[in-house]
Amino acid sequence: MKGLDLNITIVGLGLIGGSYALALKELQPKKLYAVDKDEEAIKVGEEMGIIDKGFISPEIPLKESDLIIICIYPKDIKDFVKNNIDNFKLGSVITDVTGIKREFAEEINAGLRKDIDFVFGHPMAGREFTGVKYASKEIFKGANYIITPTERNKEESIKLIEDIAIGLGCKNVEKVTVEKHDEIIGFTSQLPHVIAVSLVNSDNLGVDVGKFTGDSYRDLTRIARINTKLWTELFMGNRENLINQIEEFEKNITDVKTALINKDMKSLSEILSKASKKREEMS
Amino acid sequence: MKGLDLNITIVGLGLIGGSYALALKELQPKKLYAVDKDEEAIKVGEEMGIIDKGFISPEIPLKESDLIIICIYPKDIKDFVKNNIDNFKLGSVITDVTGIKREFAEEINAGLRKDIDFVFGHPMAGREFTGVKYASKEIFKGANYIITPTERNKEESIKLIEDIAIGLGCKNVEKVTVEKHDEIIGFTSQLPHVIAVSLVNSDNLGVDVGKFTGDSYRDLTRIARINTKLWTELFMGNRENLINQIEEFEKNITDVKTALINKDMKSLSEILSKASKKREEMS
Repeated sequence: MKGLDLNITIVGLGLIGGSYALALKELQPKKLYAVDKDEEAIKVGEEMGIIDKGFISPEIPLKESDLIIICIYPKDIKDFVKNNIDNFKLGSVITDVTGIKREFAEEINAGLRKDIDFVFGHPMAGREFTGVKYASKEIFKGANYIITPTERNKEESIKLIEDIAIGLGCKNVEKVTVEKHDEIIGFTSQLPHVIAVSLVNSDNLGVDVGKFTGDSYRDLTRIARINTKLWTELFMGNRENLINQIEEFEKNITDVKTALINKDMKSLSEILSKASKKREEMS
Repeated sequence: MKGLDLNITIVGLGLIGGSYALALKELQPKKLYAVDKDEEAIKVGEEMGIIDKGFISPEIPLKESDLIIICIYPKDIKDFVKNNIDNFKLGSVITDVTGIKREFAEEINAGLRKDIDFVFGHPMAGREFTGVKYASKEIFKGANYIITPTERNKEESIKLIEDIAIGLGCKNVEKVTVEKHDEIIGFTSQLPHVIAVSLVNSDNLGVDVGKFTGDSYRDLTRIARINTKLWTELFMGNRENLINQIEEFEKNITDVKTALINKDMKSLSEILSKASKKREEMS
């Protein structure tokens, strides 16, 4: 996929927006713009040469753009779309990268212009750092990408986002409902973050724990370096699914504890074997 | 550290034993032997050229060796030492790589010959695979190494194990009591394995989860590909510490859940910030 015959605007030039810019550049869009209220981010983006031009104010780039990729905080997206509803080009396609979809998609769709097609997307990619200076096109390589089509989406718009995801280097694009997306993501993304945070907070050893860790503790806690504002929003926006997933996890960890308390080697061994097999079979 | 003026025998030529052999070779010991009851492992080790000679029966190499590195299952070590107590060379130093120390060290020390110095060691290194064919000297690079000196250890023997650990490429050697070791390891190594296993076992989504994961789920569950026999032994051998650590972790995850249930964004945000700061400060 080369020579993408579109003008594209990225809204929010942070780690994810910047990474999109870097990866999209290889697909050679007509023009690649960015909008960010932070002048510094625009300056860095322009200096890094990852966008053609950056804007503080969205009017001009939106009016020219066929595709808009919104990479700002979930709560800000609704305001952004609402405040700019008259600025979007006729027939433009919008997509996002938000980690929760159900309530969010409903609210967005309710206020959209008929000619605009918002295809909700979620690249399963990120880093434990924030800011455009950490942007890297590598974050998409081999990643999973989820699209949650809604009834108002055109086939061709979904196809466009799908093709771009593959063009960025993603290995797989899955299409599921917004409800299923939020249920799955509660498990595969949010629960791991809850676990990492809880593990770090459990440390009451009183030693420099970094001198007693192997890869396991490091791997499990890397994502505890968390963007508090973003993840508080994501967790709260998917709280019912996440509470269910936490409870399911609690049951499983209690099973291990019970086996230990009862000195029940057989059960413990079965629990370990089951997990090992399941993890081995994961694609 | 080059030209190690010692004959060394590795007992148990699996992933860890084989990795020791590979890394020790660079320190140029006089002779590097291996003992394994599995003829195939010896054959592979000899073919890979990572040992000078392998043995099924331990008598000959033990009688010649100044240093013995035991890399077999915790329960088998006691029997090995007991059955070979007359085979060790006068004044030889023994070390091990076992992930639990307290009960184990007591039992071993009780049956030792006076002239033998057993320095208990624990390299915080491993892989999710088993067998000598996965051996790699890289597992020690930048790793932490823990030594748990006991009253009967000579300073020079401890120093020898410490120097070798650094020679293998470890970045740090810590010396703690067997009690503290087991408490710390319950947290930094065993608890992460319990969590990884429990997370994988919590999956009841009914989808191909591998198509919906980002790095977080993969990183958190990599160690769920667990050596069931080994970790069942390790967990059971440290069950009191591990139960305590699980309970501390459960409290912390319950705090997250409670904040979600109460829609308490302030508490949730504080929990996330605390973990993020703590992880960032980890050495």
